[in-house]
Amino acid sequence: MATRPAAALLAIGDELVLGEKLDTNSQWLADRLGLAGLRVLEHRTVPDDREVIASAMVRLLGDAHVLIVGGGLGPTADDLTREGLSDALATLTGEVHPLIEDDSALRDIQAFFEKIGRSMNDANRTQAMRPRGAAAIPNDHGTAPGLLARFEIDGSPRLIACLPGPPREMRPMFERDISPILEGLPGVQAADLRVSQVFGLGESELATRIADLMHRENNPAVGTTASSGMVTCRVRVEPTRPVAGPYESREPQAAVEEALAKIDSVADGYVVSRRQETLAGTLLREAEAAGLSLATAESCTGGLIGQLITAEAGSSAAYAGGWVTYSNGMKSRELGVSEADLLSHGAVSGQVAMAMASGARQRSGADIALSVTGIAGPGGGTSEKPVGTVWIGVASPGSPVSARGFRFMGDRSSIRLWSANTALFIGLLAVRSRLEVGLLREMFSVSE
Amino acid sequence: MATRPAAALLAIGDELVLGEKLDTNSQWLADRLGLAGLRVLEHRTVPDDREVIASAMVRLLGDAHVLIVGGGLGPTADDLTREGLSDALATLTGEVHPLIEDDSALRDIQAFFEKIGRSMNDANRTQAMRPRGAAAIPNDHGTAPGLLARFEIDGSPRLIACLPGPPREMRPMFERDISPILEGLPGVQAADLRVSQVFGLGESELATRIADLMHRENNPAVGTTASSGMVTCRVRVEPTRPVAGPYESREPQAAVEEALAKIDSVADGYVVSRRQETLAGTLLREAEAAGLSLATAESCTGGLIGQLITAEAGSSAAYAGGWVTYSNGMKSRELGVSEADLLSHGAVSGQVAMAMASGARQRSGADIALSVTGIAGPGGGTSEKPVGTVWIGVASPGSPVSARGFRFMGDRSSIRLWSANTALFIGLLAVRSRLEVGLLREMFSVSE
Repeated sequence: MATRPAAALLAIGDELVLGEKLDTNSQWLADRLGLAGLRVLEHRTVPDDREVIASAMVRLLGDAHVLIVGGGLGPTADDLTREGLSDALATLTGEVHPLIEDDSALRDIQAFFEKIGRSMNDANRTQAMRPRGAAAIPNDHGTAPGLLARFEIDGSPRLIACLPGPPREMRPMFERDISPILEGLPGVQAADLRVSQVFGLGESELATRIADLMHRENNPAVGTTASSGMVTCRVRVEPTRPVAGPYESREPQAAVEEALAKIDSVADGYVVSRRQETLAGTLLREAEAAGLSLATAESCTGGLIGQLITAEAGSSAAYAGGWVTYSNGMKSRELGVSEADLLSHGAVSGQVAMAMASGARQRSGADIALSVTGIAGPGGGTSEKPVGTVWIGVASPGSPVSARGFRFMGDRSSIRLWSANTALFIGLLAVRSRLEVGLLREMFSVSE
Repeated sequence: MATRPAAALLAIGDELVLGEKLDTNSQWLADRLGLAGLRVLEHRTVPDDREVIASAMVRLLGDAHVLIVGGGLGPTADDLTREGLSDALATLTGEVHPLIEDDSALRDIQAFFEKIGRSMNDANRTQAMRPRGAAAIPNDHGTAPGLLARFEIDGSPRLIACLPGPPREMRPMFERDISPILEGLPGVQAADLRVSQVFGLGESELATRIADLMHRENNPAVGTTASSGMVTCRVRVEPTRPVAGPYESREPQAAVEEALAKIDSVADGYVVSRRQETLAGTLLREAEAAGLSLATAESCTGGLIGQLITAEAGSSAAYAGGWVTYSNGMKSRELGVSEADLLSHGAVSGQVAMAMASGARQRSGADIALSVTGIAGPGGGTSEKPVGTVWIGVASPGSPVSARGFRFMGDRSSIRLWSANTALFIGLLAVRSRLEVGLLREMFSVSE
């Protein structure tokens, strides 16, 4: 097979180097470059310093064919990516590439300011500058045009694309203007990505069960990432490359289906979705398809489950609403939890979780109600009910109201996220009429 | 003044280079290194490749005195930071540094497995290996010991610290074992950080008003970061360096106080807090101090405000709970919003926001109730009420129930976050008895 072209990433900005701002562009770009079929070699982050920027560009293009640069295209004196690119091109090509004003970019910037009803100042005018021989890339979401330079080093083609720093400007520019160019590069083997999302099995447990699918040289190759109980299996295949690994005799697409089927079989009832969507997104989609509506009653998660559900566009189709019954008074007055249950079992108990779910289902009129009550910490734990003790209740049409106890690890934020995700997963099992005790018993460290 | 020692960061891991995982360590470490008084030159991210790791270490130590490395210390064959360090030390010092087993690290790993009730396997044993001449750093939160190597290049001291990748292991190890060493390096000028958090003024507006404080060469120097309406002004001072900038005649600490006072004066009633805390954290702290309790009634934010409040430990001291009245039925049944108001003004209106706040205050028994109803999009907008139209209501002891309309920009997630933060800020104004119409009128694009 031909060598895939290599890519590197360069993020520019004092605020990134000093840790004042988190760089999320590099992860996003690396993922896209991989899917586009390039090998990503390295990410680098350097300050707003003309010499450092130019030198990093030159060095990274020693190994990489493609360099994607982010940031430093703003209008202020600190924004030096244009100058750095000009210097780097001079070193790399042996010819000067002075900055010149791009007429079309200038008109775009003027039009942008007209659209938002403000006047353009001289600082913004510098954003229309580009090194001679490079092209300006129009920016539909901001004032900073991107820059694209293509040239050769010893007959081997090279590409530098400089994109604006804000993700909502960078991402559409990459998709529209850079991606198609990358896909046309010689040796590029674009990849397809399929996912299978699994909840309730540990990532290492799942990885052990599918270890033979996970070698990096496989085609398709499976990788896993985990976040608060949700494990995303990413099945990446290069359709134009022969299958390598356990399904060697198959066509690439058939091998992908076999890999997905293997994940289904080892993860059994724990598969959430074959789509790249959130747990709440899957729950809403399946609830709406089944004609079922949802309600929530939250104590220790304090609105987090409602928040995750309503973060999905169109959630009103299946979600009626909920209660944040943080105090005991709210639990009894609003959801009808009995004082006797609160006194004899405590607010963190299966009885109270069940009463909350019943009350929420009855009062909201929703088909399925989920409830959570627990100790998220750092205070409030006892030897009998340590921090991380969480009860999740569910009231649904098909089965009697029930609750299960969990012991989640980590800090307050982790415990709340695991609690919310587990409640959403239990909601999904209720929608699927799969609230079997056996399935839940295998999840994490479920207590009886 | 002596030159501050320079530092670089190296993150190791295929999952980082490929964009499967977001690197948050580099930002955290860069921030800490800056506060410890080092100049951060560069961040790099490289794959799990022995040769690449060693070569990156050698190159980064060409300019940097201190190199902090994260990741690649796990037990699998992919974890090659130990080997990379061994090779890099050989190149840098001209002497071999073969890997040897560290007895104390081995005992720690064995003890860790005993504590969690599992048995140690051979793979974990490799985690006790360290290059000869380097030290193993105990890890109280996982199995991977850190590594610390100190040596000289042409008489100039150098330090490489390799830390485990998981933040909950890396951070305490850095704080306990690396920070004190850095503070003792010659030429290090530790910095103090003070903050002033401001809500309701745009970052660029605020930056314009304090432009003279923001030059990077100043001491103290002020930087700003913004997140969903909250602008954090960071006042960084090196106490051992003379004051530079507008307060040149003052002592460093006095200059810091002047800078903070200047921010107070330009931001006036919009200052949230002088602490590094969230908006919800400030609200809870001030409400508790004033003996006031809080409740929430959320429509378009769907639980986000409750979530932000209850993310704070100890929030039950001031937060009673709330409602997620996503459907109109929930609004009228649970909070007593009249059908007439819903019909004549619509769910997204000042009248409904006020009725929600009144209902929530009355039913919860809390002193202050906040309500939000709006159109977060992407669907549901009209020409009269476009996406981003949000009404926020407040019912509190001192003033009649009121509501104000906002027009927030951005996508669903941005609109929800701005809505939640604005509601929390209005709650704070209510706690401070500063719900003057004038103050709110200046915020963003407030409609009457």
